[in-house]
Amino acid sequence: MEPSQILLVEDDPNDVELIQIALSNYNFVNKIDIVYDGEQAVHYLFGRDGQPPTAPLPRLVLLDLKLPKINGISVLQLIREAPRTRNLVVVVMTSSAENRDLQACYDLGVNSYIVKPLDFHQFVEVSRQVGFYWMMLNQLPS
Amino acid sequence: MEPSQILLVEDDPNDVELIQIALSNYNFVNKIDIVYDGEQAVHYLFGRDGQPPTAPLPRLVLLDLKLPKINGISVLQLIREAPRTRNLVVVVMTSSAENRDLQACYDLGVNSYIVKPLDFHQFVEVSRQVGFYWMMLNQLPS
Repeated sequence: MEPSQILLVEDDPNDVELIQIALSNYNFVNKIDIVYDGEQAVHYLFGRDGQPPTAPLPRLVLLDLKLPKINGISVLQLIREAPRTRNLVVVVMTSSAENRDLQACYDLGVNSYIVKPLDFHQFVEVSRQVGFYWMMLNQLPS
Repeated sequence: MEPSQILLVEDDPNDVELIQIALSNYNFVNKIDIVYDGEQAVHYLFGRDGQPPTAPLPRLVLLDLKLPKINGISVLQLIREAPRTRNLVVVVMTSSAENRDLQACYDLGVNSYIVKPLDFHQFVEVSRQVGFYWMMLNQLPS
Protein backbone atom coordinates (compact mmCIF):
# COMPACT_ATOMS: atom_id res chain seq x y z
CA MET A 1 0.00 0.00 0.00
CA GLU A 2 1.22 3.49 -0.85
CA PRO A 3 2.09 5.83 1.97
CA SER A 4 -0.40 8.60 2.50
CA GLN A 5 1.54 10.81 4.80
CA ILE A 6 2.51 14.33 3.99
CA LEU A 7 5.59 15.78 5.62
CA LEU A 8 5.12 19.51 6.04
CA VAL A 9 8.31 21.44 6.72
CA GLU A 10 7.19 24.91 7.74
CA ASP A 11 8.25 27.25 10.51
CA ASP A 12 5.36 29.72 10.28
CA PRO A 13 2.51 28.52 12.54
CA ASN A 14 -0.05 30.54 10.56
CA ASP A 15 0.96 28.84 7.31
CA VAL A 16 0.89 25.44 9.05
CA GLU A 17 -2.66 26.10 10.18
CA LEU A 18 -3.82 27.26 6.75
CA ILE A 19 -2.29 24.23 5.03
CA GLN A 20 -3.91 21.92 7.59
CA ILE A 21 -7.27 23.58 6.94
CA ALA A 22 -6.75 23.24 3.19
CA LEU A 23 -5.97 19.53 3.41
CA SER A 24 -8.35 18.60 6.23
CA ASN A 25 -11.23 17.77 3.90
CA TYR A 26 -9.24 15.11 2.12
CA ASN A 27 -9.78 11.72 3.65
CA PHE A 28 -6.91 10.35 1.55
CA VAL A 29 -4.46 12.15 3.80
CA ASN A 30 -3.93 9.78 6.69
CA LYS A 31 -1.66 12.09 8.50
CA ILE A 32 0.21 15.33 8.10
CA ASP A 33 3.45 15.28 10.00
CA ILE A 34 4.77 18.72 10.74
CA VAL A 35 8.32 19.74 11.47
CA TYR A 36 9.29 23.33 12.11
CA ASP A 37 12.87 23.60 10.92
CA GLY A 38 15.30 21.99 8.52
CA GLU A 39 17.11 20.03 11.19
CA GLN A 40 13.87 18.38 12.31
CA ALA A 41 13.14 17.54 8.66
CA VAL A 42 16.53 15.85 8.34
CA HIS A 43 15.94 13.87 11.54
CA TYR A 44 12.47 12.85 10.31
CA LEU A 45 13.79 11.58 6.98
CA PHE A 46 17.18 10.20 7.94
CA GLY A 47 16.97 9.46 11.65
CA ARG A 48 19.16 10.94 14.35
CA ASP A 49 21.96 9.95 16.70
CA GLY A 50 22.66 6.91 14.56
CA GLN A 51 19.08 5.67 14.89
CA PRO A 52 16.98 4.97 11.79
CA PRO A 53 13.95 7.18 11.09
CA THR A 54 10.82 6.24 13.01
CA ALA A 55 8.32 7.19 10.27
CA PRO A 56 8.01 5.63 6.80
CA LEU A 57 8.88 7.89 3.90
CA PRO A 58 6.03 10.29 3.15
CA ARG A 59 4.20 10.41 -0.14
CA LEU A 60 4.82 14.13 -0.42
CA VAL A 61 7.18 16.65 1.17
CA LEU A 62 5.92 20.22 1.29
CA LEU A 63 9.06 22.22 1.91
CA ASP A 64 9.43 25.85 2.90
CA LEU A 65 12.75 27.46 2.00
CA LYS A 66 13.43 30.01 4.73
CA LEU A 67 13.79 27.68 7.68
CA PRO A 68 15.69 27.84 10.97
CA LYS A 69 18.87 25.76 11.43
CA ILE A 70 19.02 24.14 7.98
CA ASN A 71 17.44 25.94 5.04
CA GLY A 72 15.07 24.28 2.60
CA ILE A 73 17.50 24.19 -0.30
CA SER A 74 19.97 22.23 1.83
CA VAL A 75 17.20 19.84 2.88
CA LEU A 76 16.29 19.33 -0.78
CA GLN A 77 19.93 18.68 -1.61
CA LEU A 78 20.24 16.05 1.14
CA ILE A 79 17.03 14.38 -0.08
CA ARG A 80 18.30 14.18 -3.67
CA GLU A 81 21.75 12.92 -2.63
CA ALA A 82 20.63 9.94 -0.53
CA PRO A 83 19.58 6.82 -2.49
CA ARG A 84 16.73 6.09 -0.09
CA THR A 85 15.12 9.50 -0.49
CA ARG A 86 16.24 10.73 -3.90
CA ASN A 87 12.94 9.94 -5.63
CA LEU A 88 10.76 11.55 -2.96
CA VAL A 89 8.24 14.02 -4.32
CA VAL A 90 9.33 17.42 -3.01
CA VAL A 91 7.18 20.47 -3.64
CA VAL A 92 8.66 23.73 -2.47
CA MET A 93 6.08 26.14 -1.06
CA THR A 94 7.66 29.44 -0.25
CA SER A 95 7.08 33.16 -0.19
CA SER A 96 10.24 33.61 -2.24
CA ALA A 97 9.79 34.27 -5.94
CA GLU A 98 13.48 35.08 -6.31
CA ASN A 99 14.94 33.62 -9.45
CA ARG A 100 18.03 32.50 -7.54
CA ASP A 101 15.88 30.26 -5.33
CA LEU A 102 13.85 28.95 -8.25
CA GLN A 103 17.00 28.14 -10.19
CA ALA A 104 18.66 26.41 -7.24
CA CYS A 105 15.60 24.24 -6.61
CA TYR A 106 15.23 23.21 -10.25
CA ASP A 107 18.95 22.51 -10.47
CA LEU A 108 18.51 20.15 -7.51
CA GLY A 109 15.55 18.42 -9.16
CA VAL A 110 12.59 19.77 -7.24
CA ASN A 111 9.33 18.31 -8.50
CA SER A 112 7.46 21.58 -8.35
CA TYR A 113 7.83 25.11 -6.98
CA ILE A 114 4.86 27.04 -5.63
CA VAL A 115 4.98 30.66 -4.55
CA LYS A 116 2.64 31.18 -1.61
CA PRO A 117 -0.07 33.70 -2.44
CA LEU A 118 -0.15 36.64 -0.04
CA ASP A 119 -3.94 36.56 0.17
CA PHE A 120 -5.22 34.26 2.88
CA HIS A 121 -8.06 32.73 0.86
CA GLN A 122 -5.85 32.20 -2.18
CA PHE A 123 -3.24 30.54 -0.02
CA VAL A 124 -5.76 28.01 1.29
CA GLU A 125 -7.09 27.39 -2.22
CA VAL A 126 -3.62 26.88 -3.72
CA SER A 127 -2.67 24.55 -0.85
CA ARG A 128 -5.83 22.56 -1.53
CA GLN A 129 -4.97 22.29 -5.24
CA VAL A 130 -1.39 21.27 -4.48
CA GLY A 131 -2.62 18.57 -2.11
CA PHE A 132 -5.17 17.30 -4.58
CA TYR A 133 -2.72 17.16 -7.46
CA TRP A 134 0.01 15.26 -5.63
CA MET A 135 -2.17 13.00 -3.50
CA MET A 136 -4.90 12.20 -6.02
CA LEU A 137 -3.49 12.60 -9.54
CA ASN A 138 0.22 11.94 -9.32
CA GLN A 139 1.30 8.29 -9.25
CA LEU A 140 4.25 6.89 -7.33
CA PRO A 141 6.21 3.67 -7.77
CA SER A 142 5.23 1.06 -5.24
CA MET B 1 8.55 36.64 -20.39
CA GLU B 2 7.96 33.01 -19.55
CA PRO B 3 7.18 30.63 -22.38
CA SER B 4 3.61 29.50 -22.52
CA GLN B 5 3.90 26.68 -24.97
CA ILE B 6 3.10 23.12 -24.15
CA LEU B 7 4.83 20.38 -26.06
CA LEU B 8 2.52 17.39 -26.31
CA VAL B 9 4.24 14.14 -27.31
CA GLU B 10 1.43 11.73 -28.07
CA ASP B 11 0.85 9.27 -30.87
CA ASP B 12 -2.82 8.55 -30.23
CA PRO B 13 -4.95 11.08 -32.16
CA ASN B 14 -7.91 10.51 -29.84
CA ASP B 15 -5.83 11.40 -26.80
CA VAL B 16 -4.41 14.43 -28.62
CA GLU B 17 -7.93 15.66 -29.32
CA LEU B 18 -9.08 15.12 -25.73
CA ILE B 19 -6.07 16.95 -24.31
CA GLN B 20 -6.62 19.82 -26.74
CA ILE B 21 -10.24 20.04 -25.65
CA ALA B 22 -9.20 19.98 -22.00
CA LEU B 23 -6.70 22.81 -22.43
CA SER B 24 -8.61 24.88 -24.98
CA ASN B 25 -10.41 26.98 -22.37
CA TYR B 26 -7.16 28.23 -20.93
CA ASN B 27 -6.11 31.49 -22.48
CA PHE B 28 -2.73 31.16 -20.76
CA VAL B 29 -1.78 28.46 -23.22
CA ASN B 30 -0.47 30.36 -26.22
CA LYS B 31 0.10 27.27 -28.22
CA ILE B 32 0.14 23.52 -27.93
CA ASP B 33 2.74 22.02 -30.19
CA ILE B 34 2.08 18.40 -30.97
CA VAL B 35 4.54 15.77 -32.06
CA TYR B 36 3.52 12.19 -32.70
CA ASP B 37 6.60 10.14 -31.93
CA GLY B 38 9.78 10.26 -29.88
CA GLU B 39 11.99 11.17 -32.81
CA GLN B 40 9.89 14.24 -33.59
CA ALA B 41 10.11 15.19 -29.92
CA VAL B 42 13.90 14.99 -30.03
CA HIS B 43 13.99 17.09 -33.21
CA TYR B 44 11.65 19.65 -31.63
CA LEU B 45 13.80 20.00 -28.51
CA PHE B 46 17.29 19.55 -29.90
CA GLY B 47 17.05 20.42 -33.59
CA ARG B 48 17.88 18.13 -36.47
CA ASP B 49 20.50 17.67 -39.15
CA GLY B 50 22.88 19.90 -37.21
CA GLN B 51 20.37 22.76 -37.16
CA PRO B 52 19.25 24.29 -33.86
CA PRO B 53 15.65 23.86 -32.75
CA THR B 54 13.19 26.29 -34.30
CA ALA B 55 10.90 26.63 -31.27
CA PRO B 56 11.82 28.01 -27.84
CA LEU B 57 11.77 25.54 -25.00
CA PRO B 58 8.22 24.85 -23.86
CA ARG B 59 6.97 25.57 -20.37
CA LEU B 60 5.69 22.01 -20.04
CA VAL B 61 6.30 18.70 -21.82
CA LEU B 62 3.42 16.23 -21.67
CA LEU B 63 5.05 12.95 -22.58
CA ASP B 64 3.45 9.66 -23.50
CA LEU B 65 5.62 6.58 -22.94
CA LYS B 66 4.64 4.12 -25.66
CA LEU B 67 5.74 6.05 -28.71
CA PRO B 68 6.93 5.09 -32.18
CA LYS B 69 10.64 5.32 -33.08
CA ILE B 70 11.98 6.53 -29.72
CA ASN B 71 10.06 5.67 -26.56
CA GLY B 72 9.12 8.20 -23.93
CA ILE B 73 11.59 6.99 -21.32
CA SER B 74 14.46 7.54 -23.78
CA VAL B 75 13.12 11.02 -24.58
CA LEU B 76 13.03 11.80 -20.84
CA GLN B 77 16.58 10.53 -20.47
CA LEU B 78 17.82 12.75 -23.31
CA ILE B 79 16.04 15.75 -21.79
CA ARG B 80 17.66 15.19 -18.39
CA GLU B 81 21.11 14.61 -19.84
CA ALA B 82 21.37 17.80 -21.90
CA PRO B 83 22.25 20.96 -19.94
CA ARG B 84 19.88 23.10 -21.99
CA THR B 85 16.86 20.91 -21.31
CA ARG B 86 17.62 19.20 -18.01
CA ASN B 87 15.37 21.47 -15.94
CA LEU B 88 12.38 21.23 -18.29
CA VAL B 89 9.16 20.29 -16.57
CA VAL B 90 8.25 16.84 -17.89
CA VAL B 91 4.96 15.24 -16.92
CA VAL B 92 4.47 11.71 -18.15
CA MET B 93 0.90 10.94 -19.17
CA THR B 94 0.52 7.32 -20.06
CA SER B 95 -1.83 4.39 -19.93
CA SER B 96 0.91 2.36 -18.24
CA ALA B 97 0.61 1.90 -14.50
CA GLU B 98 3.43 -0.65 -14.54
CA ASN B 99 5.78 -0.20 -11.64
CA ARG B 100 8.78 -0.70 -13.92
CA ASP B 101 7.78 2.38 -15.94
CA LEU B 102 7.02 4.43 -12.85
CA GLN B 103 10.36 3.51 -11.32
CA ALA B 104 12.30 4.29 -14.50
CA CYS B 105 10.67 7.71 -14.83
CA TYR B 106 11.29 8.67 -11.20
CA ASP B 107 14.86 7.43 -11.44
CA LEU B 108 15.31 9.78 -14.40
CA GLY B 109 13.83 12.70 -12.48
CA VAL B 110 10.38 13.06 -13.99
CA ASN B 111 8.45 15.92 -12.39
CA SER B 112 5.19 13.99 -12.24
CA TYR B 113 3.61 10.79 -13.54
CA ILE B 114 -0.07 10.63 -14.47
CA VAL B 115 -1.89 7.45 -15.44
CA LYS B 116 -4.52 8.27 -18.06
CA PRO B 117 -8.01 7.41 -16.84
CA LEU B 118 -9.80 4.97 -19.12
CA ASP B 119 -13.03 6.92 -18.90
CA PHE B 120 -13.31 9.65 -21.54
CA HIS B 121 -14.75 12.31 -19.24
CA GLN B 122 -12.25 11.59 -16.49
CA PHE B 123 -9.42 11.80 -18.98
CA VAL B 124 -10.51 15.28 -20.07
CA GLU B 125 -10.91 16.37 -16.45
CA VAL B 126 -7.50 15.04 -15.38
CA SER B 127 -5.87 16.68 -18.41
CA ARG B 128 -7.52 19.95 -17.44
CA GLN B 129 -6.21 19.65 -13.88
CA VAL B 130 -2.71 18.78 -15.06
CA GLY B 131 -2.70 21.80 -17.37
CA PHE B 132 -3.98 24.10 -14.64
CA TYR B 133 -1.46 22.91 -12.08
CA TRP B 134 1.61 23.25 -14.28
CA MET B 135 0.62 26.37 -16.20
CA MET B 136 -1.05 28.34 -13.41
CA LEU B 137 0.37 27.19 -10.08
CA ASN B 138 3.86 25.92 -10.73
CA GLN B 139 6.60 28.55 -11.05
CA LEU B 140 9.62 28.36 -13.33
CA PRO B 141 12.94 30.18 -13.22
CA SER B 142 13.10 33.02 -15.72
